[in-house]
Amino acid sequence: MQFATLDPSAGYTTIINTYEVEPGRADALLNLLARATAETIRFLPGFVSASFHVNFDRTQIVNYAQWTNREAIAAARVNAAVAAQINEAAKIAKSFNPIPYELRHTVLADRV
Amino acid sequence: MQFATLDPSAGYTTIINTYEVEPGRADALLNLLARATAETIRFLPGFVSASFHVNFDRTQIVNYAQWTNREAIAAARVNAAVAAQINEAAKIAKSFNPIPYELRHTVLADRV
Repeated sequence: MQFATLDPSAGYTTIINTYEVEPGRADALLNLLARATAETIRFLPGFVSASFHVNFDRTQIVNYAQWTNREAIAAARVNAAVAAQINEAAKIAKSFNPIPYELRHTVLADRV
Repeated sequence: MQFATLDPSAGYTTIINTYEVEPGRADALLNLLARATAETIRFLPGFVSASFHVNFDRTQIVNYAQWTNREAIAAARVNAAVAAQINEAAKIAKSFNPIPYELRHTVLADRV
């Protein structure tokens, strides 16, 4: 098995997308996002990884996604299949807010 | 060099801490957080990694931090040196909002 790695020297763009959700719908949203990523998004040019998180009161789902650059993200958003999946997610979530970031620096534990 | 890795099976707690900042102070905040982590936090029990991001308009700094569990995070927050560093960061940032998450699932690109 391979893991997503956070490498500041890679020059990727990280999109952190925070979805607000009713706690009872958190699993449904997680499943939808994971399936859409596995079936469609992971094959798109420039996609690197997506990692799905839930907070402890189950009111937020966060997708920490890496892409090679912002142009690849813009192209993905106008892909018809992806646009349909965004619409599906928007029906389950109360809101979502994707913000692009640059990874600047990582510090690891002393013992790692 | 080693990188932070995102492993859903590790059972870590991820803290995503979003700092709102004046664009002109983004680098000062990044430097403060990186230094505090390198000098103090990385030696604390349960700390795994911290990765610092900046958005493209430089109004947000995000620390994506992994800890072995929530108890380790609670213990870190009452450490005197950490508390002092949090106070320093609070003077530079307009606000900050640490939220703990569980990493549930990762999808990698088809070509990885």
